[in-house]
Amino acid sequence: MTAATYMGRLVDEMSPETKVAQLGTVRIGSLLEDGRFSPERAREEIPHGIGRVTRVGRESGLPPEALAGVVADIQSFLRTETPYGVPAFVREESLCGYAGRRGAVVPQAIGMASTWDTPLVREVAAAVGEQLRAVGCQLTLSPVADLGVEPRWGRTEETFGEDPALAAALTERAVAGFLDAGVEPTLKHFVGHGRPAGGRNRGRPTASLREMRDADLIPFRAGIDAGASSVMAAYNTVDGVPCHANHRLLTDLLREEWGFTGTVVSDGRGIELLATEYGVAPDKRTAGVLALSAGVDVELPETECFGDRLVAAVSDGDVDESLVDRAVRRHLWQKVRAGLFTDPLPDPGATAEAFGPNSVRPLARRAARRSQVILTNDGVLPLAPDAAVAVVGPNADAPRNMLGNYSYAGAEGDDGHIAVSTPRESLSERISTVEYARGCGVREGPTDDIDEAVALAADADVVVACLGGQSGIDVERDSSGTTGEGLDRATLGLPGRQSELLDGVASTGTPVVVVLVSGRPLAVPETVERANAVVAAWLPGQEGGSAIADVLLGTDPGGRLPVSLPRSVGQLPSHYRQSPVSTGEYVFSRAEPLFPFGHGESYAEFVYDDFAVAPESAATDGTLTASLAVENVAPRSGTEVVQLYARHRGGRSVRPDRELVGFRRVSLGSHDRVQIDFTLPAAALATYGPADRLVVEPGTVELAVARSAVDLRGRGTVELVGDPHAPEDRPPVAETAVRSA
Amino acid sequence: MTAATYMGRLVDEMSPETKVAQLGTVRIGSLLEDGRFSPERAREEIPHGIGRVTRVGRESGLPPEALAGVVADIQSFLRTETPYGVPAFVREESLCGYAGRRGAVVPQAIGMASTWDTPLVREVAAAVGEQLRAVGCQLTLSPVADLGVEPRWGRTEETFGEDPALAAALTERAVAGFLDAGVEPTLKHFVGHGRPAGGRNRGRPTASLREMRDADLIPFRAGIDAGASSVMAAYNTVDGVPCHANHRLLTDLLREEWGFTGTVVSDGRGIELLATEYGVAPDKRTAGVLALSAGVDVELPETECFGDRLVAAVSDGDVDESLVDRAVRRHLWQKVRAGLFTDPLPDPGATAEAFGPNSVRPLARRAARRSQVILTNDGVLPLAPDAAVAVVGPNADAPRNMLGNYSYAGAEGDDGHIAVSTPRESLSERISTVEYARGCGVREGPTDDIDEAVALAADADVVVACLGGQSGIDVERDSSGTTGEGLDRATLGLPGRQSELLDGVASTGTPVVVVLVSGRPLAVPETVERANAVVAAWLPGQEGGSAIADVLLGTDPGGRLPVSLPRSVGQLPSHYRQSPVSTGEYVFSRAEPLFPFGHGESYAEFVYDDFAVAPESAATDGTLTASLAVENVAPRSGTEVVQLYARHRGGRSVRPDRELVGFRRVSLGSHDRVQIDFTLPAAALATYGPADRLVVEPGTVELAVARSAVDLRGRGTVELVGDPHAPEDRPPVAETAVRSA
Repeated sequence: MTAATYMGRLVDEMSPETKVAQLGTVRIGSLLEDGRFSPERAREEIPHGIGRVTRVGRESGLPPEALAGVVADIQSFLRTETPYGVPAFVREESLCGYAGRRGAVVPQAIGMASTWDTPLVREVAAAVGEQLRAVGCQLTLSPVADLGVEPRWGRTEETFGEDPALAAALTERAVAGFLDAGVEPTLKHFVGHGRPAGGRNRGRPTASLREMRDADLIPFRAGIDAGASSVMAAYNTVDGVPCHANHRLLTDLLREEWGFTGTVVSDGRGIELLATEYGVAPDKRTAGVLALSAGVDVELPETECFGDRLVAAVSDGDVDESLVDRAVRRHLWQKVRAGLFTDPLPDPGATAEAFGPNSVRPLARRAARRSQVILTNDGVLPLAPDAAVAVVGPNADAPRNMLGNYSYAGAEGDDGHIAVSTPRESLSERISTVEYARGCGVREGPTDDIDEAVALAADADVVVACLGGQSGIDVERDSSGTTGEGLDRATLGLPGRQSELLDGVASTGTPVVVVLVSGRPLAVPETVERANAVVAAWLPGQEGGSAIADVLLGTDPGGRLPVSLPRSVGQLPSHYRQSPVSTGEYVFSRAEPLFPFGHGESYAEFVYDDFAVAPESAATDGTLTASLAVENVAPRSGTEVVQLYARHRGGRSVRPDRELVGFRRVSLGSHDRVQIDFTLPAAALATYGPADRLVVEPGTVELAVARSAVDLRGRGTVELVGDPHAPEDRPPVAETAVRSA
Repeated sequence: MTAATYMGRLVDEMSPETKVAQLGTVRIGSLLEDGRFSPERAREEIPHGIGRVTRVGRESGLPPEALAGVVADIQSFLRTETPYGVPAFVREESLCGYAGRRGAVVPQAIGMASTWDTPLVREVAAAVGEQLRAVGCQLTLSPVADLGVEPRWGRTEETFGEDPALAAALTERAVAGFLDAGVEPTLKHFVGHGRPAGGRNRGRPTASLREMRDADLIPFRAGIDAGASSVMAAYNTVDGVPCHANHRLLTDLLREEWGFTGTVVSDGRGIELLATEYGVAPDKRTAGVLALSAGVDVELPETECFGDRLVAAVSDGDVDESLVDRAVRRHLWQKVRAGLFTDPLPDPGATAEAFGPNSVRPLARRAARRSQVILTNDGVLPLAPDAAVAVVGPNADAPRNMLGNYSYAGAEGDDGHIAVSTPRESLSERISTVEYARGCGVREGPTDDIDEAVALAADADVVVACLGGQSGIDVERDSSGTTGEGLDRATLGLPGRQSELLDGVASTGTPVVVVLVSGRPLAVPETVERANAVVAAWLPGQEGGSAIADVLLGTDPGGRLPVSLPRSVGQLPSHYRQSPVSTGEYVFSRAEPLFPFGHGESYAEFVYDDFAVAPESAATDGTLTASLAVENVAPRSGTEVVQLYARHRGGRSVRPDRELVGFRRVSLGSHDRVQIDFTLPAAALATYGPADRLVVEPGTVELAVARSAVDLRGRGTVELVGDPHAPEDRPPVAETAVRSA
């Protein structure tokens, strides 16, 4: 008997209560008593078994070894004391590391995206996955596959940026990394969460589903193709219908068109909102039926609209039991594939290894280093180790401000204490003279003392001002956060008195390096104007301080912007991938963003030549190639991100001015020269035309190699000829090969 | 033989050149020599006849009598010297009055919308139509049926505001008014021009076609139902396809679904843009074929992609001649219905009457008066006629700043001189002591002298500060405009040094009344904070000064906001009709707009009671009623706009928190009390559900009577029961009846 047959028979035998239990979720807190698993509570809470156990790291507060033991107890309980002995998916968040005690905190996603380093993204996801797996989690609510096209939105930091091709390539690698570690990733939030009206969390997306098919949906498809078996529905509506009740989206598109066979999980309380907020269901029970019918299989964060209400709806004939069976089969089948029936228990040995000294720290530092983007540098960087440096600003010595949303604020080192490096700390270790003054908080506060910072600046050779925001952090969420979930902004400047602090230190005449520690793309033209160098460090995680010091002292980070940085909040949307609109500037300001997508300076200098595209004309189902040589002409090594953009004209629907279709990060020693070959199937240029069907249309394709979306270094043209071609799928980016030239 | 049969035969007989000529347009300038009609030039320019002759007022620069003569000459030429003698549609703009010499300038559309006065809108359109008709125009490019939901967009002033029900009711009356005068209105811009991404003209709409069906499309449908025979395609894309090439929009929806039988005209160069900007056509000729095939019948502003290029495309077999025939039939049939074959020539007598002394002036003043919205008033208004008043600000004595976009900047009085009243002028006539200092320009400039204005303020009893923007004006468009077509903004504050001026005069302690003369909704919380009263006067037209004086001296204007006024540009979109999103405020600011849609203070005071809705439950194809009594409890007369909002819950798609479904403007003497009865077909609550089909769904409808979208004065509930009902059409607003109570 195959596993599938077995599952089919199992579902036939299960009682409605037992089946519905598989669609539900319990928070680990409900099963604990004094930090230990309580069989009594479990018998009361999950008598019919349970689909998933959640928030295990954050809510238990247990160190890894103890948590692994509790998880083993829970799974044993389920195996022995519930009908059919079905193990649960145990899960925790991992947006920027396993969100539990001693979990490593890596750079938040927008920083990972800034690396443009696909192998690194996989490696980091695998390392995080090892920690998850070691505490017994086989599933996580990561990665975020949303596009970050709305900087006002607090969750922009959780995205891989604004570009579908870059986000797809990285989503694919994050999925692969989690799977490497035996953890099922969850792609979220399906779909449109990342372009909410007004930047307000849960706002409706400001694009149609057809437009989102050519953008927001691409990373989801890539993640599914890479093996993700879990998708989370988004809070928002699409075309006026909440995603949690959107059959067209969750069933017609995701299942029937894409062939997705995993499970769809609700966002936290997303099913209830159908009744309580959106008014498309009169009550929670109807909301549950509506969501199940549309294609939601599992409820989060706990059982509320499914559970007893769904059992009653089945028994009253308000929903066909086959819809319950469908969801249960999907969930059981997902458990089979994830190995829960064969290998449900955490390996005690793995815990020590995954959380051991230096398990993730060097990788976290490497990632944090590569995630930094040098926005401007007039030569003040790199710093000399013998300079007298004044380190100022609210993010210079604030460990928690290094960390992203959903990280575990109690991040501890091996000795049980917080182990987050700060710029002040790390610079002090490596530069002979470092003085520190906070100057002001992220927000204005009674302890702000700008004069002190200005006095230090006046006596220093150079000022390092660590400015920016602070991410709301899940466990200790407080009112001080300025980015993160639910922390949307209507302004994009530096909060509090930070601009005043910068004015003050800059007015001394001492050169100023600004390090922006921020989850959100800020609009800070005056800051850039005033500083001698600006580095976007995003939310670099526990090794943030060390990595910032590495970069300020001369390691070429290689980071490039995964989002356009706007000039002002009033010019949004500022993302680069827009249709041509040649109506010029605003009355009082320019329409272009302050820094374009893909931008980043290097300590080295790169020259591009021999750019060639081929063939002159290709079939719509053919292949295009582009090649170039790139040489580091600087007397030092450095890292370049070579970008390939397409402009497709002649189809029936309007294409963006430029679309990223390939990229390659290369590190080159002084005077190294390499050739890079891009191989781009024409299918990568497919679009959802007026017929709402993926198609490659004949026309003219201009390919350009570039250092950013606007800094083009070579162009060539290919004519796409023949009939329109409808490919099965659309590879998001070109294959690349690098050879010495 | 019926006219239709005749037209059919005519088209069968016509040569391709003659047919295509009917789809083209010529600017009147091409037919003139020294301000007179030139048969020689006409023989060269329009040998095969012509569809339309345009820009007759602006480009000829002729006074009405002379222009009427030229138009008669052109029509005679067409009748006698071109094949089949087909007369042309002669047209001019009329967004806020006939755009030619001596044309009356009425309030710009956003001001007309602020009146919420449907008979007045019709009366004004008819009066403008009389002037158009008198110079020989039988067609005009007005009204704008776009929703104004994006204050950054320069053309917001041309709209009837953000609400589809209000805009539909007013569009319907504007259409009726033009038709009363024998002028064919043109509904523009189909569709989505009013919600462009980034507020940039031509930007893609930030909503899907399905969402726009429940909003942006409603005024267009209402205008067509009211008899409009002309629709202009919008520059933007919808779902990625330019409207000018959008068969789904222009043919499937407009023609087949709605039954529209008139003509679709391109926006100026809108067809060319398919090739030059959007890249969906390789060249102009293909662009013409694409547009014609999608459903564009007539090209603007002159013949470029149709004409010879289209003739060649027909002769080369690149387009089926039947598509040309289709467009020609539509255009000829529209000419028949408009009476061009029976009555093509202007009536010389009409010119003198339409442009005679006092022809439109009293109406323009009444409209301008009613268009004003008292945003706040701490009691400083009305002004006492014996007060010493300091009038300051860039819009206090600047005639052209009173006028809207597309008005004729050379507006002349009966004596040939400009006849635009300004606040300074009008207040000086009616208040004994008025001193004036400009203080500063709309933009900062070398003649700004804030000190002078502050000195005046210090000595005055009250300051009237006329602040705001300046509309770009078609004929004399210059770089100083801050609103109007192509004048989009990324900020919404007062330009230049106006805030400084206000600070200065307010700091004297003299009470300050701010009059905002502005086409764009501004975000000016500090201005409101600082002023003792704020009046939004929009762009009030040639009688603006008189009307502002009327209101400041005590005439209750009755104006109510047709748009929400945002608190900041960063909270956009701020329109009220959004889906519920209960995620609270922004990190540093509130999410609610500064003033809600429907808001406006009165010099009187109104009390609502006896609000009742019926029946308790109604069928989905039934009728709902609401009634209330409203009483003016003040010792003076005043005008109230009673508003009825619905909240529909229980359908499959998400409805806005509140939707305007009825309104009634009533003027009440002191202690007058009236009963208002609203009769609302359930069909008015229909929405385009997931099936993309207009449907009234069962559920709960809360009806609320209100003084704005947030100031509710009574609520009641009706259950809609039965099966979903698919009505033929959706009436935008309830019928109302007023009787004494």
